[in-house]
Amino acid sequence: MKKNIGSVVGLYPTPLVVVGAMVEGKANWLIAGHVGIVGHNRLLVSSMKNHYTNKGIKENKVLSVSIVDEALLPKADYVGSVSGAKTDKSEAFAWYRGDGGAPILEESPLVMECKVVDNYETETFDNFILEITATLADENILNEQGKIDYGVLKPILFEFPTYSYMKTGDFVGKCLKLNSK
Amino acid sequence: MKKNIGSVVGLYPTPLVVVGAMVEGKANWLIAGHVGIVGHNRLLVSSMKNHYTNKGIKENKVLSVSIVDEALLPKADYVGSVSGAKTDKSEAFAWYRGDGGAPILEESPLVMECKVVDNYETETFDNFILEITATLADENILNEQGKIDYGVLKPILFEFPTYSYMKTGDFVGKCLKLNSK
Repeated sequence: MKKNIGSVVGLYPTPLVVVGAMVEGKANWLIAGHVGIVGHNRLLVSSMKNHYTNKGIKENKVLSVSIVDEALLPKADYVGSVSGAKTDKSEAFAWYRGDGGAPILEESPLVMECKVVDNYETETFDNFILEITATLADENILNEQGKIDYGVLKPILFEFPTYSYMKTGDFVGKCLKLNSK
Repeated sequence: MKKNIGSVVGLYPTPLVVVGAMVEGKANWLIAGHVGIVGHNRLLVSSMKNHYTNKGIKENKVLSVSIVDEALLPKADYVGSVSGAKTDKSEAFAWYRGDGGAPILEESPLVMECKVVDNYETETFDNFILEITATLADENILNEQGKIDYGVLKPILFEFPTYSYMKTGDFVGKCLKLNSK
């Protein structure tokens, strides 16, 4: 018999991302682990309403979503630990302005530049629904077919219950081909 | 300079789940990797509108979301490869009816029983917004504080670009404590 531990969100680990947005003319950065995929073409990024970055996202309607690899993690963790309202984080990473206007984090191997198409608001959270306008990848994380190779990229993952970062492990197999039955 | 590979969803790997719902009086099962966390208390499960399971979810407004570990993966992969419209999958797993009415997958170490509080519809997808009514865990995946230990659970993850399953790797460290700067 299973133990009922209450209404605990257990849908982890999720990919950790750095969200980049211009706020009051400066690049600002936020880490997020409460993210999702909506259909086959939209992302969801959930961010507490009082976050400083949300202001710029709402004003400019563009942002970037960067995957964090192990090399980037210490800096990503740092920008998650201080608020842009008090600390200028614009030089925390090397970056440039993307075609859509969002700051692109050069040190991330995989950045999705997005426009905000909706905000699915809950009581204390903005849940931004995002359309991807460009996916910017370092060549070395692409396989011979030009697809993202997560075995090379190995994104850092997040889990809330013990508030920890985890690694992406190895491949197990191809989907819908294990033929167990 | 990064390469623009188009509007590619790169927010992977995500936790693979088995969604369980009663459809026409029988338990039915669906695998999903397009999932998300909305705020701190809601889940999102995205499922193409023509999926057989969606019918039961809409009728009953309850479902279960089960994390897949390596032992469960072959069966999870099987239920993902056949439609409930053609194949009776009710006996694919051992299960029982949860307090809320959804089928609870006994073989998963972590099951969230949920009620559907909204459907954020897009053109071809139902994106069910879920409130968790009970989180049911096997004792061995809980740590001494009673929290879910993802280092023991090691959920199977999903990535779409090469359509593969991946393992959860090891812990890297505690969030917001890496003090890089």
